[in-house]
Amino acid sequence: MVEDMKVTPWDVKGNIDYDRLIKEFGTERLDSKLLKRIEKHTGSLHTFLRRGIFFSHRDMNWILDEYEKGNKFFLYTGRSPSGDVHIGHLVPWIFTKWLQDKFNVDLWFQFPDEEKFLFKDELTFKDTEHYLHENMLDVIALGFNPKKTKFLIDTRHAGLMYKPACEVAKKITFSTVKSSFGFDDSFNIGQIFYTAMQSVPAFLPSVLAKKNIPCLIPYAIDQDPHFRITRDVLPKMGYYKPAAIHSVFLPPLTGSGGKMSSSIKTSAIYTTDSPKVVKDKVMKYAFSGGRSTLEEHRRLGGNPDVDVPYQWLRFFEDDDVKLKQIYDDYKSGKMLTGEIKQILIDKLNAFLEKHQERRLAAKDKIDEFILKV
Amino acid sequence: MVEDMKVTPWDVKGNIDYDRLIKEFGTERLDSKLLKRIEKHTGSLHTFLRRGIFFSHRDMNWILDEYEKGNKFFLYTGRSPSGDVHIGHLVPWIFTKWLQDKFNVDLWFQFPDEEKFLFKDELTFKDTEHYLHENMLDVIALGFNPKKTKFLIDTRHAGLMYKPACEVAKKITFSTVKSSFGFDDSFNIGQIFYTAMQSVPAFLPSVLAKKNIPCLIPYAIDQDPHFRITRDVLPKMGYYKPAAIHSVFLPPLTGSGGKMSSSIKTSAIYTTDSPKVVKDKVMKYAFSGGRSTLEEHRRLGGNPDVDVPYQWLRFFEDDDVKLKQIYDDYKSGKMLTGEIKQILIDKLNAFLEKHQERRLAAKDKIDEFILKV
Repeated sequence: MVEDMKVTPWDVKGNIDYDRLIKEFGTERLDSKLLKRIEKHTGSLHTFLRRGIFFSHRDMNWILDEYEKGNKFFLYTGRSPSGDVHIGHLVPWIFTKWLQDKFNVDLWFQFPDEEKFLFKDELTFKDTEHYLHENMLDVIALGFNPKKTKFLIDTRHAGLMYKPACEVAKKITFSTVKSSFGFDDSFNIGQIFYTAMQSVPAFLPSVLAKKNIPCLIPYAIDQDPHFRITRDVLPKMGYYKPAAIHSVFLPPLTGSGGKMSSSIKTSAIYTTDSPKVVKDKVMKYAFSGGRSTLEEHRRLGGNPDVDVPYQWLRFFEDDDVKLKQIYDDYKSGKMLTGEIKQILIDKLNAFLEKHQERRLAAKDKIDEFILKV
Repeated sequence: MVEDMKVTPWDVKGNIDYDRLIKEFGTERLDSKLLKRIEKHTGSLHTFLRRGIFFSHRDMNWILDEYEKGNKFFLYTGRSPSGDVHIGHLVPWIFTKWLQDKFNVDLWFQFPDEEKFLFKDELTFKDTEHYLHENMLDVIALGFNPKKTKFLIDTRHAGLMYKPACEVAKKITFSTVKSSFGFDDSFNIGQIFYTAMQSVPAFLPSVLAKKNIPCLIPYAIDQDPHFRITRDVLPKMGYYKPAAIHSVFLPPLTGSGGKMSSSIKTSAIYTTDSPKVVKDKVMKYAFSGGRSTLEEHRRLGGNPDVDVPYQWLRFFEDDDVKLKQIYDDYKSGKMLTGEIKQILIDKLNAFLEKHQERRLAAKDKIDEFILKV
């Protein structure tokens, strides 16, 4: 199974071995010492930190060193608009919002609206324009501080971004892109150039402020090949290497390795799904760690470690005591598959009800968030 | 000698065999029938047309078909700012100005200020910024109509250009770029992407006007590989193939094949050279078709076909009768090398005196020419 693992910015499949990714990508584990150091500043630890959902990093200690010296970082994350947002996408953003609040820092949120256009044959700029609008609503709905958050949209902000992207591009050969992303000569020249645009938000705030500002990028680990290149190039241009903090993937509803994918509709819960749709999807598609008969389940117990409802509750149930109880009850056979599914359904629907309200309200706020040029 | 010929957008060397270029590039010769058709509209033929300095084209008949139907074309040419302008650069622009006047059409003049930055290790954006300013003065000094001329500067107008460039880029693979330009995996990803930016002005006016407008691109033939790609891609996007009209290269002062080059200072006369510098360069470096002794020259005559002063007069002496007289006198031995050089010096200095005056005056006009966004 491990042989099948594939993790690139455009393709994640197989059973993900996160220890192996730390080794192969050359990142560091977020250990208890570092968590304690973070907690000193944040007062408490986010669920995603306590549960190892953010599990890896690069240079977080340096970010905290600088922060403690009064040299504040800014956050950078993003979303390539090519489909509707599902709850897997929200994971790094929810955490980014927490970091923004706790450290009171700026966030540059990139919408590289050309990326998927370049990577998907059938996708048009009309499509990405539609998804850009929809996706911005989801990001705003998470409650980012409009005074401290700047949306950067590649095709609209290219007047600012293309020149620094060329400075990055000058330092990246096609050989590097080939080995980093597995490209070959049949790839289009926009795909080949694209990684330079993804590097830009990591130093654009420094360019605009005319001083070097540390950058921290929270992201799901599949984006790491881009930022390895960014970290390689930026010091050659006189900027800091951006630091990073990496999340695991929310597993697909169907539980079969890889990450939740917009292209497999039954594997995902969308932010706009109705309570009924959520219920139907979870009941019908959620991969279960339960036994095949009621009698067997009561006798042998379920397996929460492969059970998708339990795995998702690790992301969405903040209360550690409740979560532990669910784990124990499911494992002992006291809690049935239908019951744990219902707990998840209630949790998701409560979350989505609020999110959908805020999403509606976000329509009037888009202009506040888009960077003025 | 022919084996040494190399003609790419970044390298021209060897003795240029223009017939072979027409065949290899697949263009058509500007024949007398087409010249007559042009003359019908322009009243007279520019020196550069009468003398075969513009010698090749693609789809000029289609441009005239459309023009005659009332469907006017726009002109597109450009300058990559990476050094001072020499008189060789002026050749296509002088002709473009003539076309603008005779057909009363818009000109989009591109300054791809990232191109040479990406291609030359030592060149910085500070350098290109300096040359951009200086080069714009030279273009304006040629007398383009400010009401009908728009300067497009890649890094400044990327907000307009990057999105259409991505649409082009999506249709060009690295394989195509490799075979068109001779790139390999060691090229940087900005160089690889760049040709997409050079395609944009060929259809940007159509994008902005929301209707398809024919485009005619006058250029020295070395730029053809870019525009072959443009012509291949644009119809797939629903735009017209741009037409083209091609010039030969002004030979270097030193006469040794290739084209006048900014990087070999003694091979070029710059638009800002003083009368004394022009005189010294021509006297010292101009490759001569004269004989080694006065006696021999008088007896056997000179060879105007290799003589750089004569070759340059073909570009800069408008009067056909005078030019013929110079040819005959030089060939017969009546005119000496010093004499033909002096004729060229006077011609160049008269031209440059006016150009330098207009160049000074151009400083106040730059803003009129740069496209407003």
